[in-house]
Amino acid sequence: MTTAEIFAQIQKKKSFLCIGLDVDLKKVPSFLLEKEDPIFEFNKAIIDATHHLCVAYKPNTAFYEAYGIQGWQSLQKTIDYLNEYHPEIFTIADAKRGDIGNTSTMYAQAFLENMAFDSVTVAPYMGKDSVEPFLAFENRHTILLALTSNQGAFDFQTQQLEKDELYKEVLRTSTTWENAENLMYVVGATKAEFLADIRQIIPDSFLLVPGVGAQGGSLKEVCKYGMNDQVGLLINSSRGIIYASQEEGFAEAAAQKALELQQQMEAQLQ
Amino acid sequence: MTTAEIFAQIQKKKSFLCIGLDVDLKKVPSFLLEKEDPIFEFNKAIIDATHHLCVAYKPNTAFYEAYGIQGWQSLQKTIDYLNEYHPEIFTIADAKRGDIGNTSTMYAQAFLENMAFDSVTVAPYMGKDSVEPFLAFENRHTILLALTSNQGAFDFQTQQLEKDELYKEVLRTSTTWENAENLMYVVGATKAEFLADIRQIIPDSFLLVPGVGAQGGSLKEVCKYGMNDQVGLLINSSRGIIYASQEEGFAEAAAQKALELQQQMEAQLQ
Repeated sequence: MTTAEIFAQIQKKKSFLCIGLDVDLKKVPSFLLEKEDPIFEFNKAIIDATHHLCVAYKPNTAFYEAYGIQGWQSLQKTIDYLNEYHPEIFTIADAKRGDIGNTSTMYAQAFLENMAFDSVTVAPYMGKDSVEPFLAFENRHTILLALTSNQGAFDFQTQQLEKDELYKEVLRTSTTWENAENLMYVVGATKAEFLADIRQIIPDSFLLVPGVGAQGGSLKEVCKYGMNDQVGLLINSSRGIIYASQEEGFAEAAAQKALELQQQMEAQLQ
Repeated sequence: MTTAEIFAQIQKKKSFLCIGLDVDLKKVPSFLLEKEDPIFEFNKAIIDATHHLCVAYKPNTAFYEAYGIQGWQSLQKTIDYLNEYHPEIFTIADAKRGDIGNTSTMYAQAFLENMAFDSVTVAPYMGKDSVEPFLAFENRHTILLALTSNQGAFDFQTQQLEKDELYKEVLRTSTTWENAENLMYVVGATKAEFLADIRQIIPDSFLLVPGVGAQGGSLKEVCKYGMNDQVGLLINSSRGIIYASQEEGFAEAAAQKALELQQQMEAQLQ
């Protein structure tokens, strides 16, 4: 999927919402637990109820790995369902992978080729040759961690290097890598005021922005500092949407929460 | 497993070898491909032939994820086999995970609890609250990426911060985290001369050292600068051992390569 196609979808749906499919079986409605694949059934219901309100879905792989082989089956079914019934939607494997070159190639194949996600999140610590194998996949995107939404972001990411803070160095350096046009970046909404500086370095890139809602980030602030002429933002919400209710009508409750965010986004697009 | 138990095993086997189980079906003997689970059969043969020569096994998860659900089944069977038949051997899930707190907890459960690995490798970029959930598991170890063996290590890890290079800051900061006694570190053999400085910061920790062999690192140099009074080193070799031959006798050929390394290690222990 190209960024132009993502932008077209944003314009059509008046939304730049990404919904995080982080399924914790302790939090899903209890009647689902009797089904053969409760994780997939939960995701399917959420997708069916919300796909017209969002432009991306982002399963975090941790929540699937925690359930072992069954979890991976649920993840595979979820991405297959999205690719078959909602091919226009941008899919993100939130996996935060990264390893030496030949190993990163294996990860890239796993997510971008075999599972056929449109994109995967990648950690930058191991540098260029750990990221370029992901960038080599045509019409796929690599979403590099830049400035994350958690408190630990201040441990290393915001440390001052000779010229600039580490996360800015990550941004700047990554633009020199091969196929850098396939890069997007994770920037947490909890640090919206950093977005003005970030846009100086990467004016045109799409940003995946977690941290609105449960983690306290402000949508309005993110748009103020981070929006570009193709919008350039995918705002993620996970828990705030998918766990809106634990009753029979959980999917409709999730859709209601997604609608509220979509409407706030529509206001920002005007 | 405690580090004292690892040290006892090193003394008994006169080896501090870790064998990387990075199974690429393009590189295994072709007759194995007819078996129901070629990846597991390959690992089992390698383990049966080498377990007396090494103290740790390290499957890199990328090589299993690349084969989807079947790959995860092979990984599960491999760790189950190790835990059942060789419980004295230290097991490492080389997964390089790391995410915000509640998500890291899911990863930690996946590898340290459900799959029951003794340890897991973790990336430091997201800081304290992304690593501490792993450290919370008793008698398990978290192996933090510090200075990796690849060229990309020079992109960010060796960048100068206000006081020190980033990888040193990672080492120093991590020692202040809760349950820091459960930490080990990845330090590439290709950068052996850095080990003297590293030992100033973390004199007692075990180091997982990739890069001897295929990547060009020197065992002797690593021992010279990195060994402490509990040895404190787990030297990994993957391709150099497991792909020694692609014929019927591949496991014996692997054992021969492992024996050569064990003998070099025995010389260093005297």
